[in-house]
Amino acid sequence: MRLSLWTVLLLSILFNAAKGTNYHHNPRVTLTEKDVSFRRHRLSGEHNRTELLQGPKDYSIYVGGHRKMFLIDFQAPSQSKEGVCEYDITILHKDEEDLFVCGTNGIHPVCCHTPKETLCSCKTYSAEGSAPFSVNERAPSLYIEKELYSTANLYAQGDGAGIRRHGGTRGRIWSGANKTEQIYVGMTLSGPRADRLQDRIYTFLVERNLDQHPEADLWVSRVTQVCKADRGGTKAILQNQWTSLLSAQLFCGLPERKLGFKHLLDVSILHADSWRDSRVYALFTNGWGMSAVCIYTMGDIDDVFTKSSLKGNRKPVPNSHPIKCVEDSRKLPQEVLRQRKDYQETNDWVRPVNGSGPFMVSHHHYRHIRADRVSGKGLRQHTVLLLSLERGAVHKVLEQNGQAFIIAELHPFSHRTHIQNMLLQPSTKRLYVSTSSEVVELDLRSCQGYGQQCEDCVLARDPYCGWDGSQCTAASGHTIQDVEHGSYLMCKEGGKTAKNVVPHEVHRVPLSARFFLQCPMLSSHAQYRWHHQEQQRECLPAEGQCLLLIEKMSPELEGNYSCVASERDYVWTLIQYELQTEIDTGQLVPSSQHELKTESKSEQLVSFSIAPLLPLLLTLIN
Amino acid sequence: MRLSLWTVLLLSILFNAAKGTNYHHNPRVTLTEKDVSFRRHRLSGEHNRTELLQGPKDYSIYVGGHRKMFLIDFQAPSQSKEGVCEYDITILHKDEEDLFVCGTNGIHPVCCHTPKETLCSCKTYSAEGSAPFSVNERAPSLYIEKELYSTANLYAQGDGAGIRRHGGTRGRIWSGANKTEQIYVGMTLSGPRADRLQDRIYTFLVERNLDQHPEADLWVSRVTQVCKADRGGTKAILQNQWTSLLSAQLFCGLPERKLGFKHLLDVSILHADSWRDSRVYALFTNGWGMSAVCIYTMGDIDDVFTKSSLKGNRKPVPNSHPIKCVEDSRKLPQEVLRQRKDYQETNDWVRPVNGSGPFMVSHHHYRHIRADRVSGKGLRQHTVLLLSLERGAVHKVLEQNGQAFIIAELHPFSHRTHIQNMLLQPSTKRLYVSTSSEVVELDLRSCQGYGQQCEDCVLARDPYCGWDGSQCTAASGHTIQDVEHGSYLMCKEGGKTAKNVVPHEVHRVPLSARFFLQCPMLSSHAQYRWHHQEQQRECLPAEGQCLLLIEKMSPELEGNYSCVASERDYVWTLIQYELQTEIDTGQLVPSSQHELKTESKSEQLVSFSIAPLLPLLLTLIN
Repeated sequence: MRLSLWTVLLLSILFNAAKGTNYHHNPRVTLTEKDVSFRRHRLSGEHNRTELLQGPKDYSIYVGGHRKMFLIDFQAPSQSKEGVCEYDITILHKDEEDLFVCGTNGIHPVCCHTPKETLCSCKTYSAEGSAPFSVNERAPSLYIEKELYSTANLYAQGDGAGIRRHGGTRGRIWSGANKTEQIYVGMTLSGPRADRLQDRIYTFLVERNLDQHPEADLWVSRVTQVCKADRGGTKAILQNQWTSLLSAQLFCGLPERKLGFKHLLDVSILHADSWRDSRVYALFTNGWGMSAVCIYTMGDIDDVFTKSSLKGNRKPVPNSHPIKCVEDSRKLPQEVLRQRKDYQETNDWVRPVNGSGPFMVSHHHYRHIRADRVSGKGLRQHTVLLLSLERGAVHKVLEQNGQAFIIAELHPFSHRTHIQNMLLQPSTKRLYVSTSSEVVELDLRSCQGYGQQCEDCVLARDPYCGWDGSQCTAASGHTIQDVEHGSYLMCKEGGKTAKNVVPHEVHRVPLSARFFLQCPMLSSHAQYRWHHQEQQRECLPAEGQCLLLIEKMSPELEGNYSCVASERDYVWTLIQYELQTEIDTGQLVPSSQHELKTESKSEQLVSFSIAPLLPLLLTLIN
Repeated sequence: MRLSLWTVLLLSILFNAAKGTNYHHNPRVTLTEKDVSFRRHRLSGEHNRTELLQGPKDYSIYVGGHRKMFLIDFQAPSQSKEGVCEYDITILHKDEEDLFVCGTNGIHPVCCHTPKETLCSCKTYSAEGSAPFSVNERAPSLYIEKELYSTANLYAQGDGAGIRRHGGTRGRIWSGANKTEQIYVGMTLSGPRADRLQDRIYTFLVERNLDQHPEADLWVSRVTQVCKADRGGTKAILQNQWTSLLSAQLFCGLPERKLGFKHLLDVSILHADSWRDSRVYALFTNGWGMSAVCIYTMGDIDDVFTKSSLKGNRKPVPNSHPIKCVEDSRKLPQEVLRQRKDYQETNDWVRPVNGSGPFMVSHHHYRHIRADRVSGKGLRQHTVLLLSLERGAVHKVLEQNGQAFIIAELHPFSHRTHIQNMLLQPSTKRLYVSTSSEVVELDLRSCQGYGQQCEDCVLARDPYCGWDGSQCTAASGHTIQDVEHGSYLMCKEGGKTAKNVVPHEVHRVPLSARFFLQCPMLSSHAQYRWHHQEQQRECLPAEGQCLLLIEKMSPELEGNYSCVASERDYVWTLIQYELQTEIDTGQLVPSSQHELKTESKSEQLVSFSIAPLLPLLLTLIN
């Protein structure tokens, strides 16, 4: 006994839950090597891990791999070089002077400083407690003023579990013993603040949930802070340990539906002029393999760390909370240090911007996230996310007013592969994608794949791209685009619409013969149909083609066919066919009429030739 | 900084989580009106709710709708009839003598008894507190020995929230006030037991979760028991209320991954000879709109009700738990009644058979479930589930050793529609599916859609179907099937393989002409490929067809093409094409050679005609 209204209500709730918000879940276009120029570099050897770092020149990158380091110059490939190392690279940084490289042979981690051109032929020193022992250990790190801020999970060897700082003159600092397994995902400087003493390091991680509730997730995601100025506590309390460590849950979900994404996979930070406006783009997954992206501001994170009460802390000590970074934490009162040691978790959670839910929920299995800020028409700033997929593809996603629009699925590889790492170079707008054996450079301003017309270019809504009057090209002050609405009217207003030359094919098809019409389906957001003699016929979609199959040619099937697409309120014709019935002269027509078969495209001529034969043709068909 | 091994591990965990178990998620075949004969009956009027009940004859059903009742005879449609009612039907039952009908006009619920042929033209009595006020309220019920066991959710008007019994001579009984919103989904008699006094009524429901934990689901699913013999308590305690009410959580999920399906949607019960072996097939959903089916035995449910401790009960009273049904519960000691009132929930959960997880996890949005037991070859019993989909389709699913195999997706409707209700008639193996305006009868033993060969029939793994030597037909003692493994070898062993006549088409295609080959893709579990001259070419899949597009005919494309499918270890050819290049006689061949164009299928003749022209052809092509 079922009830329709109840059912409909329930289903609508479920749908909305599954959808999250209203937007297209599928990439509008799929671009392969045919559509976009990718530059590729094969790595010698096989690499389980590839660390990527911007090189000394534009379009050059360092790649650290298995006992090798590469400097790849994509503009002058002949100048690329590689060096043999005695270890597998796990950490790669650079500063004004030189490269800072760490690696491991599986037993001993080492680090070294090396001039930028020599790759890893430098004198190493033991890095136990600061760099990972295993290449399988993820270890985000920062290198600031010759000090290395690094991370290690619970099961790493050595004493450095948690967040640690080495190098420099201030001595090393590490976290106390962790109670649970942690996987570090990202690290950033929250700053620069007006008072540089208050600069903090934020670290993003996922850890095994200690909550034993039967419905609690296996994982919980967190952000932690430490003061950059922290020098540890006194001999009695927190010596060589962070005195400013605080941890807050990072929430990503739909609280009203009790749906959460608990497993943080990756973060990307877009720094703003004012540090509080800087944004963290965080990629999560849930137990069902779904993905979600939540956006947090540094200001919101800071507010939680400074304003939330602390878990378990019922007797506040004056001056201890909120934490202020101090010149020398070793001089903090014992009472304060004790509290800092005992209460390291906030009661409040860090929630996404504007109190909203995930910016994006998807059934795609995303793995990496990179965010870029793109200047559009009229000083507008747009945010684009690059999300790697499990099979070697990358989604280019426009973030706009909390809505996601998947501009394109990019296929830098012709085969299915596993993307290990991605590096975004904001100044050159290049994305570097690495696998175990290859690095590919994607030009994010490669725009020709969107189509040949102004409207194609504008509908793409790609902030990197604009129409310059003759082609879809890298956006500039002179190009037309409409990232906000993708309205084709922009082209008319700009007066830059090129004459739309629709390909026109004439085919003579023998009676009763098979034939097919095909039309490229570029946009998955468009509707495609065939128009023929006032009739509309459905597309037969087949791998990016809209087909029309003619099993048996007949006079009724003659005439003009147009493949018409519509997207938003724009309607355009992609290709036109003119089909003419070809008379099988060998059997039906006296040889004196052979001239009909020459390459004539005149409809009149065809109708002339067919008219007298129609009765005969109809007899044959029936 | 990313790490490949870690990533691979994580992804593999996520995949397995998403998959649940290993089986095909997609229906092997899709069957429409072309493949299966559906019998349909249009209902006059529009109905928000359609109650279905087996009619007095085979292939006849009662349908209760909006102010109407129908008796539809699918075998003799002219004998179908309808009656006008003063209310919308909400409950339909029958016994030996007559029909028992309840309905509502939105303000007053009524019930009546009516002879089976008169439909709803009977004298009604007020049913406040026993039948639903609103057609939108789901209300599973049972009608046993002139007593009505019915259900009502919290927000129904009247005093009957929960489970209630009316009619008969024993006076009415209802549940106490519920603390939370409940939606009742199913009801069944757990029995007959050896001692009929111990027979219980089990009710299945979903209710708002009172657990305020931030990660607790919004919903929790339960099964409750009451003794059929229950007569309520004393004037002081539980008067006219159940004294044997117990409720247990119904768990469906993957506990090791902390993944649960908390929202029960529907149940179907397969009674066994021994009541403890009877099985409950329960359909759940989660917040993401995914579906899961879990299977419970009545014995396991009974074990939880009799062996589990009760929530909050720390001072057990002798003789009170486990609950034994008694002849007259009004004579139970006050102490026992007080305990029955205070402790109505078990600590233990009811878990799926064999301690396993869900039998089936799917991204399909299933809505209704019906289970059928089918006798297969050699006295083997198979279970088939019928699951309705949101768009008007039905999945026919084989349950075997805890694995699901989706035999077919049935499309009884040509358009997208909302299935309101399903009724399975196990004796005739018919499934009745209702929408707001139509009822369709599906013959579950309709087998011709699986194909023309013994192997097609056996690969289908449909326990309703077998190969009789010449066609795929309703299974009997004389037909061949292999539900367990779907092995085509069964056909060879049975010696009943019909001669496989592969369609062979010869086409003469003009040089440079377009052409396409097509081949039906019946099974989504098979791989399809084109074989041509020792080469294999990929299928271009397009809506159930495997296409091969020839853009421009050339001599190299001549010859034989076979469309070859492989599924499990069976490989077969579906269609063969022979392509010959047709010479355009009007331009290239003197008219004296016109006889080449007559309907000749000899390869020799073609090669003879082409050979002397090859140099010329190649020039034209290049």
